[in-house]
Amino acid sequence: MPFPPSAEPSAAFRFARNALDRRAELRDDAATIEAAWAAASARVFVLDGGRAIVRRGEDGGTSAAHDAATATALAGGATTRLFLGTADDVAWFALAANDFEEREDAPFHAVDLRSLAIEGSLPEDHYGALATARGLLHWHDGHRFCARCGAASQIVSAGWKRVCPGCGAEHFPRTDPVVIMTIERNGRCLLGRSPHFREGMWSCLAGFMEPGETIEAAVRREAREEVGVRIGRVTYFASEPWPFPGSLMIGARAEALDDELIVDPVEIAAARWFDRDEVRQLLDGGHPQGLHAPPPIAIAHHLLRRFVDGA
Amino acid sequence: MPFPPSAEPSAAFRFARNALDRRAELRDDAATIEAAWAAASARVFVLDGGRAIVRRGEDGGTSAAHDAATATALAGGATTRLFLGTADDVAWFALAANDFEEREDAPFHAVDLRSLAIEGSLPEDHYGALATARGLLHWHDGHRFCARCGAASQIVSAGWKRVCPGCGAEHFPRTDPVVIMTIERNGRCLLGRSPHFREGMWSCLAGFMEPGETIEAAVRREAREEVGVRIGRVTYFASEPWPFPGSLMIGARAEALDDELIVDPVEIAAARWFDRDEVRQLLDGGHPQGLHAPPPIAIAHHLLRRFVDGA
Repeated sequence: MPFPPSAEPSAAFRFARNALDRRAELRDDAATIEAAWAAASARVFVLDGGRAIVRRGEDGGTSAAHDAATATALAGGATTRLFLGTADDVAWFALAANDFEEREDAPFHAVDLRSLAIEGSLPEDHYGALATARGLLHWHDGHRFCARCGAASQIVSAGWKRVCPGCGAEHFPRTDPVVIMTIERNGRCLLGRSPHFREGMWSCLAGFMEPGETIEAAVRREAREEVGVRIGRVTYFASEPWPFPGSLMIGARAEALDDELIVDPVEIAAARWFDRDEVRQLLDGGHPQGLHAPPPIAIAHHLLRRFVDGA
Repeated sequence: MPFPPSAEPSAAFRFARNALDRRAELRDDAATIEAAWAAASARVFVLDGGRAIVRRGEDGGTSAAHDAATATALAGGATTRLFLGTADDVAWFALAANDFEEREDAPFHAVDLRSLAIEGSLPEDHYGALATARGLLHWHDGHRFCARCGAASQIVSAGWKRVCPGCGAEHFPRTDPVVIMTIERNGRCLLGRSPHFREGMWSCLAGFMEPGETIEAAVRREAREEVGVRIGRVTYFASEPWPFPGSLMIGARAEALDDELIVDPVEIAAARWFDRDEVRQLLDGGHPQGLHAPPPIAIAHHLLRRFVDGA
């Protein structure tokens, strides 16, 4: 896929970068998929849950893309195989690892996707393909049985569908939309701490969308539930695939109608307003109390950058 | 919930209109939910698949909201019950009907949600609650078994979660994001016909998002797959819950970089460019060949209205 000519916020996120054409029309063409797999040029990611198996080279380089034979050995036997698409006539796949074990004398290591993204050691356009693979493999892992009748279901369409041999139901991969937003009022931005955040981390409020909601309604509901704040205008900012394990983060700017907070103690450990200078310190370092915001791999970072820049 | 003070496009859609505060904090409070159900003021929607059981009054009025006793009788015995939220201290629920049968002498009829929305016969803010109920009940209907281990799972949290007594897995309702877009170039808009459209209907291209995509990337992929057109800038327009059965429609404007079409014959029966005057005729009637666009209950209608108005 040619990279979008417009410099849109969504295209800049690390987990959005993907050079693959998904070639959905090939997924049910088993002969073509097998030939692509057998080609010497085929490249394969191997994932062990949320970790990619990477080769750390002696030159310090890191690669998550393996040839099919190496990938099969790393995966450890029969496993789930996905066809991710093609780029420049090269077919890309992903395999799920069966209990990968690191060996001291081997250059292969299992590294979680968050660390790989933060270190930025892979080619930029591999992160989106890894996010796709992680989302699909996690879905397969939790959907081995038909939710309609309980029978064991089977993988078809090169990993993009499951069918039930019992009742015939078709099951498709799941992507969970999440809203995440800056809540703004009088030049300040409302940030919160989730109970599971590590010390000093503050971020945007966020939550899973529910059936029957618009994006804007979900933003208003989350703000009301978590901090008791009413929201006026909501403006879409950008979206990011978030492979922890399979969310679509939908970022927005929300204009608050209240200053006072009524914090939900179950969802939120702390929440307060930050002015622009303080948010800039959260992003760039130098906050007097050592507080900080999420790193640039997260859409929250970019939502806060937009708030700081006032765009 | 107070209606949003800003006149945003998403808030205008019929299936987005919902006066209920979802009160998620009550879902696990069984005693409060039972007391709310037992209150004389409780109001209940009854759905038979994609149809709501409505009372057609002698005065021509239509109501989908019943008292608990009437709803229980209409539902026909033990069934799935959802807590939808509260408004003005009244608790709202939904029940799934077991094989509802119309009786000639009774005022109750099963009417599909699309017809109810087009006729606009219900109070405006009931449609969003019905969309929520439809999405949840459809999810329960297809998820009676644990996808992780195959055991029969159980409804908890007043209908907002299922848990597996076998393996302990928790399952949450599913909402499937779909992108739908006007594809525009040189003052014209690209519309298509799906093979299942009825005669004369033309609409925006649309498709389910896949794991690992941004909204903008999904718009570009669908345009490339379905009509072979490259897309430059993508701009978010609005979103709409679409209860057929449980999608989140994400509407966008897409600027095309190509005029020529390479139509996918599997997905698309026909596609072509329309100028502004012709799109206006599709919306308002009067097209010389009798062609038309979706009605105002669909986000496609509003995407096309924005194109016609040039906003």
